Amino acid sequence: MQFTSEQRLDDGVLEREFTLGEIPGILWTPASATAPAPLILIGHPGGLHKMYPRLVARARHSAEYGFAAATIELPGSGDRPRFATAEQARADLHRALEAGEPVDEEIVDRLVLPLVERAVPEWQAALDALLSLPEIGGPVGYSGGVIAIGVRLAVVEPRISAAVLFAGSFVPRTTFEEARQVTIPLHVLLQWDDEGNDRQAALDLFDAFGTKEKTLHANLGGHTGVPQFEGDAAARFFTRHLS
Amino acid sequence: MQFTSEQRLDDGVLEREFTLGEIPGILWTPASATAPAPLILIGHPGGLHKMYPRLVARARHSAEYGFAAATIELPGSGDRPRFATAEQARADLHRALEAGEPVDEEIVDRLVLPLVERAVPEWQAALDALLSLPEIGGPVGYSGGVIAIGVRLAVVEPRISAAVLFAGSFVPRTTFEEARQVTIPLHVLLQWDDEGNDRQAALDLFDAFGTKEKTLHANLGGHTGVPQFEGDAAARFFTRHLS
Repeated sequence: MQFTSEQRLDDGVLEREFTLGEIPGILWTPASATAPAPLILIGHPGGLHKMYPRLVARARHSAEYGFAAATIELPGSGDRPRFATAEQARADLHRALEAGEPVDEEIVDRLVLPLVERAVPEWQAALDALLSLPEIGGPVGYSGGVIAIGVRLAVVEPRISAAVLFAGSFVPRTTFEEARQVTIPLHVLLQWDDEGNDRQAALDLFDAFGTKEKTLHANLGGHTGVPQFEGDAAARFFTRHLS
Repeated sequence: MQFTSEQRLDDGVLEREFTLGEIPGILWTPASATAPAPLILIGHPGGLHKMYPRLVARARHSAEYGFAAATIELPGSGDRPRFATAEQARADLHRALEAGEPVDEEIVDRLVLPLVERAVPEWQAALDALLSLPEIGGPVGYSGGVIAIGVRLAVVEPRISAAVLFAGSFVPRTTFEEARQVTIPLHVLLQWDDEGNDRQAALDLFDAFGTKEKTLHANLGGHTGVPQFEGDAAARFFTRHLS
């Protein structure tokens, strides 16, 4: 892990860009940290540059609650090399959406599963590197992004103690089976009137999660209209489980 | 409105029992109130004495956030005279439940609608009396209890500015139609694994509410197992809308 830039934001949060091999990432640590800080891994749909304003807002909000936050670029997104299977699936998806056709499960599998297979070990490698820093302690939470990645991480990565998941992306069939194996506390956000999202699939996924500590928060406002107070609710969830 | 007893609880909350005509009720005001306090009407399934421990806990919790709280006995519950239609419907309901039969919509209508018809004007009369007290200001929130009463109050009583509803009781068909007319902010609690509750009906009711500001919080824990952190979430909802 190589730090490539460093700046102090106006609220005192330290923002450092890094590379982990060929993967770019960003780490934010709170100004006031005296002890090693618990860490939140910030998921996103891909494209660090484009997503930066929202990512830094989430990181600064986490810092107010005493959490460090980190994110890495997804495979095939941003400046990272594309991979052919995902590009083909993405083209097929757009074709189906433009034609107003239902999105075939097989397209979702081709789109999401290779991404999960590649992204999860990268998040784990990032976690190795981040937890070796003296200013990062743990426990670790995972928040948002592609829900199939969050579910897989919750199942395979024992260092993740709690997760906030956003039910707003396509869910491969196998993710429902993996969901039954999740035992960590979950806080699931659902935008009730998200037209691009299958509400029933989101409710079925919430039902499938094996954990006894799961909360669903549903709101109006469309795909990107998560109400501001939900940021506080997520931070309080992490405070309950990572402190 | 006649106060019949008064005691100061150990956290300084003033608890006063009252009667409003033949209806018994309880008013709690926060110790620290310097200005007239906003008011939360605390709904319940009936039976003030039996419910007292849970009611006083909710009132004390509301007082921590600066709210006064009040409740009245439901028609036909506690020490109040029974009425024949509801008693007959209750007997029919228990017979259906014991026989493991699905509960007929017609039984739900006979059970709940006469209760709504009687209870809503009583809550409104209580509101008249409570808002005439110098220590109570407003705005007013309604919280919990029989959901059909909460929905009707949200529609017909303009002095109620926000409501927390518990999706845990039988919903008459007409309540779904009334739900479309609700325009105040709503915070709906659903116990996901409540075996005595029809989860799909609760989700359908949440979908039906006409308000743009509605949030659903679903948790595990069975009918009476609402997690403690939901008390804080409800208080923060009221703080956003009654302050």
